[in-house]
Amino acid sequence: MRHNFGAGPCILPQEVFKQASQAVLDFKDGLSILEISHRTPEFEGVVEETTKLVKELLNVPSGYSVLLLQGGASLQFAMVPMNLLPEGKTASYLETGVWANKAIKEVPAFGKANIVGSSKADNYTFIPKGYSIPEDSAYFHCTSNNTIYGTEMFSLPETNVPVICDMSSDIMSRVIDVSKYDLIYAGAQKNIGPAGLTIVIVKDEILGKVDRKIPAMLDYKVHIDGGSMYNTPPVFSIYVAMLNLRWLKSKGGVAEIEKENIAKANALYKEIDRNPLFKGTCAVEDRSRMNVCFVMENPELEKPFLKLAEENGIEGIKGHRSVGGFRASMYNALPITSVHTLIELMQIFAEKYQ
Amino acid sequence: MRHNFGAGPCILPQEVFKQASQAVLDFKDGLSILEISHRTPEFEGVVEETTKLVKELLNVPSGYSVLLLQGGASLQFAMVPMNLLPEGKTASYLETGVWANKAIKEVPAFGKANIVGSSKADNYTFIPKGYSIPEDSAYFHCTSNNTIYGTEMFSLPETNVPVICDMSSDIMSRVIDVSKYDLIYAGAQKNIGPAGLTIVIVKDEILGKVDRKIPAMLDYKVHIDGGSMYNTPPVFSIYVAMLNLRWLKSKGGVAEIEKENIAKANALYKEIDRNPLFKGTCAVEDRSRMNVCFVMENPELEKPFLKLAEENGIEGIKGHRSVGGFRASMYNALPITSVHTLIELMQIFAEKYQ
Repeated sequence: MRHNFGAGPCILPQEVFKQASQAVLDFKDGLSILEISHRTPEFEGVVEETTKLVKELLNVPSGYSVLLLQGGASLQFAMVPMNLLPEGKTASYLETGVWANKAIKEVPAFGKANIVGSSKADNYTFIPKGYSIPEDSAYFHCTSNNTIYGTEMFSLPETNVPVICDMSSDIMSRVIDVSKYDLIYAGAQKNIGPAGLTIVIVKDEILGKVDRKIPAMLDYKVHIDGGSMYNTPPVFSIYVAMLNLRWLKSKGGVAEIEKENIAKANALYKEIDRNPLFKGTCAVEDRSRMNVCFVMENPELEKPFLKLAEENGIEGIKGHRSVGGFRASMYNALPITSVHTLIELMQIFAEKYQ
Repeated sequence: MRHNFGAGPCILPQEVFKQASQAVLDFKDGLSILEISHRTPEFEGVVEETTKLVKELLNVPSGYSVLLLQGGASLQFAMVPMNLLPEGKTASYLETGVWANKAIKEVPAFGKANIVGSSKADNYTFIPKGYSIPEDSAYFHCTSNNTIYGTEMFSLPETNVPVICDMSSDIMSRVIDVSKYDLIYAGAQKNIGPAGLTIVIVKDEILGKVDRKIPAMLDYKVHIDGGSMYNTPPVFSIYVAMLNLRWLKSKGGVAEIEKENIAKANALYKEIDRNPLFKGTCAVEDRSRMNVCFVMENPELEKPFLKLAEENGIEGIKGHRSVGGFRASMYNALPITSVHTLIELMQIFAEKYQ
């Protein structure tokens, strides 16, 4: 039995793997999903259903478009200012980690970046609060979950400027009010599907307000007009995303999975706080439900604990090099039984070394 | 028995589908290829082997980098001038189809496009020849195979300016001399692998000569430095490309597959020229080996022929709307037996309707 706590690309439901594996052999009339044209009615149906499932699961209001793109969050870092920041204007950014920082670095090619809050000096162990967003900002950009550091933003600042959010690592994990955002983007490879797909949810009315020439592939309007089929889309990644979103819907949707995610996070943080060998690395109020970062009071015990975990089928809990220790990523498809297994090992270890 | 003549995404070898299907269930120690981190040694090995296979199969000289990217040829249309065309300078383009035309449309955001030759007025039924490329062009851009119209460029013009080639639909189908090109790009979804991956082969010394700020994800140098892992790559598409390139190598490589491709193309064109009901749509000397376009002398017979073909397992031969008639795409993985089946049906049909 393997317990995949990897940070991403990450665990997806076993039944999704089975269905995807079958479609690689036979998607339709003996043809593989890898050899069908994206212009067949069958695949157009896949794009349509995937788009509809995103809208349904996140309760996306009218006036928003859902796009299935390529290039990951990293390409969105540039597409956002290219499409939304008029020449010479300023955009406000909240700096909550390396990914937020990479988004900020793409701004100067298009306008000015104003960092309204940062926890960089504290190695991003908390989400800055109490900052103010200048009214003349073209937009405010934030990262809802910081995979590396294990912090999550559970509330948005009050502001009148458009809100743009990189939701790569917690989209579909909890209920959000999409109407509070003007653009949401997410690399698919956590709770949506395999790598190679990017989801964008954009309020149509914010587009078309910059003068610069935007290459077709980087223009949200081109993709809206093309129904996410302006060019050949990442067929298989979209198909698997559809299977995974169907699974999420069958589980009761985002509200139901959120309950499970809260239960998983609470169980593990409780053990971290209780167990004298371990400690969390982040401000308690900003603790992520998706990525739980923790270290050991005695760093010398980290190696033997990692060994014990790996011997028991725990995958991917080595912490990111910039934090150290451990990171248990607990995306939607990770069963709570895997979390219980990890907790038990922490308890066994504590009994031995305490 | 299905015969997949689709224009792309297209047929890949059956054994590749079987291996890919298995890896979706179990790539390594019970983990799916869809849930493993791209930072695992196992997947880093996949990226390394895929890159090496591209170099080996195309005999890529030293001084060139092979990149595994996203966004298809459509994103390359913009990345090429963004990275290679200095502000205010001119790039020369050969206009041989809609895709070449889309590449040309991305130029004005960065510099000037000079169309040195065009067959647009003749619906792209031939490859222009006898044009000259101004010495002060930043580069010359061409499309080696025009999927929609069924033309292929079998020789390059003599020029001293850097040559950039969109090789999306004939890369890996015939031996090329990479040293004659400065940058080659190709969407993977014909002879390389599934959709969602783009291959770029770039001569390192042509980079770094423009002053503009290039977003990280659109900067070839960033991807060279990152070893195609600057951000999360399209894991599954790369894995399947590796399987497919292994298959090509086991078949004897590009020189061997080229012989098969010539045999397949010769057989079908011979029947088109012999059969009184059918005729080719392109200049004979520019006929593509990958996409064979043909129509019927009597257009009223096209529907019944299409019906006969489909009843006999022939998939995807309906012509593109801008050409009409039929298009038989015969990529590497299409067995010659499928071509023989199509030819037989053309003969049976001729006997009935002649």
